[in-house]
Amino acid sequence: MIFRQLFESASSTYTYLLADPVTRRALLIDPVVEEVETYAALLADLGLTLEYTLETHVHADHVTAGAALRERFGSRTVVHRDGGAACADVPVKHGDHIRVGAIELEVRETPGHTNGCVAYVGADRVFTGDTLLIGGCGRTDFQQGDAGRLYDSVHSELLSLPPDTLVYPAHDYKGRSVSTIKEETATNARLGGGTSREAFMAIMANLKLAYPKQIDRAVPANQHCGREVVSQG
Amino acid sequence: MIFRQLFESASSTYTYLLADPVTRRALLIDPVVEEVETYAALLADLGLTLEYTLETHVHADHVTAGAALRERFGSRTVVHRDGGAACADVPVKHGDHIRVGAIELEVRETPGHTNGCVAYVGADRVFTGDTLLIGGCGRTDFQQGDAGRLYDSVHSELLSLPPDTLVYPAHDYKGRSVSTIKEETATNARLGGGTSREAFMAIMANLKLAYPKQIDRAVPANQHCGREVVSQG
Repeated sequence: MIFRQLFESASSTYTYLLADPVTRRALLIDPVVEEVETYAALLADLGLTLEYTLETHVHADHVTAGAALRERFGSRTVVHRDGGAACADVPVKHGDHIRVGAIELEVRETPGHTNGCVAYVGADRVFTGDTLLIGGCGRTDFQQGDAGRLYDSVHSELLSLPPDTLVYPAHDYKGRSVSTIKEETATNARLGGGTSREAFMAIMANLKLAYPKQIDRAVPANQHCGREVVSQG
Repeated sequence: MIFRQLFESASSTYTYLLADPVTRRALLIDPVVEEVETYAALLADLGLTLEYTLETHVHADHVTAGAALRERFGSRTVVHRDGGAACADVPVKHGDHIRVGAIELEVRETPGHTNGCVAYVGADRVFTGDTLLIGGCGRTDFQQGDAGRLYDSVHSELLSLPPDTLVYPAHDYKGRSVSTIKEETATNARLGGGTSREAFMAIMANLKLAYPKQIDRAVPANQHCGREVVSQG
C-alpha cells in the first residue's frame, strides 16, 4: 500500500493518502480545503487517481476539501449518514466497507465527539478521527458531544482492536504522528490505565475549553462537503 | 522495527525514533532540545532505552538535544567527524555502521549543505537530513555549503538507492512526511527530472535566501552537542 500522512498546520490536522500500488487508485481521509494543491501535486507525482474522500466526522476546526476534490477529480465524498451532510455521495454506517483496489477499510461508528463520528479500520491500522487522539481524545462539549458515549465507543470499537494496530488520529498538537492500541490502552491520559467511565466523564466535564475559533464557519461548510466555502473563495 | 516520526514546529524539524522491538533499545535521529520531554515520555511509554542520538549534520536552525539526552539517559552522540563537534561520543565517517539490536544504519557522507553532512541508510529507508528534502534540498550558501558537492552527493549516494527506498528528510515546510527515491528522481524541483549539475548550481546561486534566524545561536551550540545552551537554560 502507498501511504502518506500529511499535516495541515493551521488546524493541526492529519490527512491520510492511501493508494493501491497496482491499480493506482487512491483515497484521502480528512482532506483540508486549503491543501488541495498539495494533494493534487502528490496525486500527480505518484500517478494516482483519487476515488474517494472520507470524513471521520463533520469537523468543527477546518473545512473539508471533499467538494473541491470532487469537482476537480470526480472523487466521491464519504461521510457517516448521521453527520448532517446530505451532500455526501456515499453516506456510510457501521459495518460498511470502502474498497480501493486491494485496500479495504471497515466503517465503525464511534459516536461521542459528534453523533456521526466513525473510525476507518484497515488491516494493520485505524484512522480514529477525533474519537481517540494520541494520549487524549476529542472534546465532547458541542456537536452532540457525549462523554459517556465516547468512552463506550473507544472501549467497544477501538481498544478492542489488536494491540499492535497503528492509531492514526485526525490531529496531534505535539508533533507526534502515530501510536498503537496497546500504548493508548496503557498510557492515554484520559482513557488509558483502566480509567473508569465515571472518572472519564468527570475529566471531560471539567476541561473548561475555549469556544472553537472555526466552528461557526466550519460546521455549516462541512455539512455541504466544503462546497459553500469553496464557491465563495 | 518500532518507528516514529516526530515534528518540532518552530523549526519544522523531523526527528525520528527507531527501536528494536525485542531488545527495546532505541536511537533518535536529529532530536531538538525543546522536545526532550516529548522524547522522554515516548521512551517511557514504549519501554525503550535510548542508546544513541544521531545528527545528520551540525544544524543551523535548531539546537540538538544530544547533550541533554546524554545527561539524562546516558545515550551516546553520533556526529560526522568533519562536523566540528568535538563533543561527539561517536565521530563517524563514510561506511561506518550504527547498530541497535537488529537495526543497522549505514553512514554515507553527503557533503554539500555542510562539510559534515551524512545520510543514514537503513533496510528500506534513508534519513537524508538537509541534503535531500521532499521536492527540494538544503541551502548551500553558508557552513561550507557547495552546490556542486551537494549535487554529486545526492546523485552518487542517494538517488542511487533502490527506487522504493523511503526518503525521510530533516525538514518539511508543507506538511509532507515522507517520499521515495523514485519520486525525488522524477519530480524533485531542483534535482529531479534529469537536471544537470550546471543547471542545479545556477538554481542554488540565485535563491536569494534570508540569513538564518537561529544560525548564530545554533551552530556553536550544536558544535557542543547542544550542551552550552542546555547549561544556560
